[in-house]
Amino acid sequence: MSSTKDIDALIDLMAKMPGLGPRSARRAVLHLIRKRSLLLTPLADIMQVVAETARECLNCGNVGTTDVCDLCTSNERANGEICVIESVADLWAMERSNVFKGRYHVLGGTLSALDAVGPQELRIPRLLDRVETEEVTEVILALNATIDGQTTAHYIADQLEGRVLLTSLAQGVPIGGELDYLDDGTISAALRARKSL
Amino acid sequence: MSSTKDIDALIDLMAKMPGLGPRSARRAVLHLIRKRSLLLTPLADIMQVVAETARECLNCGNVGTTDVCDLCTSNERANGEICVIESVADLWAMERSNVFKGRYHVLGGTLSALDAVGPQELRIPRLLDRVETEEVTEVILALNATIDGQTTAHYIADQLEGRVLLTSLAQGVPIGGELDYLDDGTISAALRARKSL
Repeated sequence: MSSTKDIDALIDLMAKMPGLGPRSARRAVLHLIRKRSLLLTPLADIMQVVAETARECLNCGNVGTTDVCDLCTSNERANGEICVIESVADLWAMERSNVFKGRYHVLGGTLSALDAVGPQELRIPRLLDRVETEEVTEVILALNATIDGQTTAHYIADQLEGRVLLTSLAQGVPIGGELDYLDDGTISAALRARKSL
Repeated sequence: MSSTKDIDALIDLMAKMPGLGPRSARRAVLHLIRKRSLLLTPLADIMQVVAETARECLNCGNVGTTDVCDLCTSNERANGEICVIESVADLWAMERSNVFKGRYHVLGGTLSALDAVGPQELRIPRLLDRVETEEVTEVILALNATIDGQTTAHYIADQLEGRVLLTSLAQGVPIGGELDYLDDGTISAALRARKSL
C-alpha cells in the first residue's frame, strides 16, 4: 500500500478505530504526517499517557486517571444524589447537559438474559453498598429508554424500594423534535405525562 | 466533559483528525481505552515511531521513513517510466491498482494562480532534472481530471515536449459506472475516445 511498513502498520491500526475504515485511515495518516508537530507528536504522547494511566474509578466506574475519579472526590458536587447510567459515554452526555451536580454510578451495561449478564456482571452490588454507606437520599435511574435499559431500571428499583427516593428521567418530546418524525411510543408517553400550562 | 484533563486532551486532538468530530472522537477514545493493550498502546508506539521517522523522499516526494523511499530504491521496478501524480494519496491509489511498475514523482499539489502556487512551489524543477538524469523514456501524467490538474499537466507537457514520450490516463466510463449517473463531460469524453470491438 504505502512504501513503508511503519506507515502501513499505523494505517492498519487507525482503520480499527470506530468511525474510520481503510480509506479514511489512509487519509487521516497522511494528514497526521503533514501536521506532525501540531498533531501527530502530541497525539502519540497523550495516547502513551492515557494508555498508562487510564483506569475505571473503583467507586463509580467512570473512566479516569486515578483510582477514584475526579467526580467522586470533588467537593463541589453534592452527596446524597446518585445518577445511575449504563456507560461512561452516557455519563459524559449527562455532564454536557450541565444540570446534575450530584454523584454518578456507571453500571457498565444492562441486564440481559440472552447474553447472560446478571447483576453481578454489572456494578449493581456496589450501587446497593453506596446507597447504604453514602447517606444517599435519591437515586436517579437515567438508563436508556430501551427494553434492556428499562428492565435494568426495574430490577434496581425493586432492590432499592423503600430505602431511598427513586426517580427516572422524564419521557416526552425531545427539544427541537417534530411530532411528525417521532415514534408512536414517544408521543403516547408525552401525552400521558402532559402538564398544565 | 470527561473528568480528567489527559483524556479530554486526547479527545480534543482526536477531534482534529479528518473524518472525526467531537462526538466520534469521544466514542473513539472510549473504544481505545477499552481496547488498551490491543489498540491504544500499539497505536501510541507506532505514532511515536512515525512522528520521528516519517519524511518526504528527496527524489520523488513520496512519504517514507528513509531519505530516499523504497519505491525509488527498489530493484524490482523499471527505470525509464515516471508516473507524475499530485499527492501521496494518489500514489497510494496507483499502487493499489497494481499495474504500474515504474517510478513515481509526487508534485505536492497543482499550479494555481489564485493561491500563488507556481512551478517552484511544486516539485516540477526536480521532475525536469530527473527526466534528464534518469534516462526516462516516458512520462505518464496521472493528474486529477480537474481544471487545476489538467492545467498543471499542460504546463509539464510544454516543458517536456520533444524530450520524452508524454502520456496521460485514459478518460471514460469508470468500471461499474452507470451512464445515468455520469456527468455529461465524462460521457462525451468516453464517446470521443470510443474504440472498435
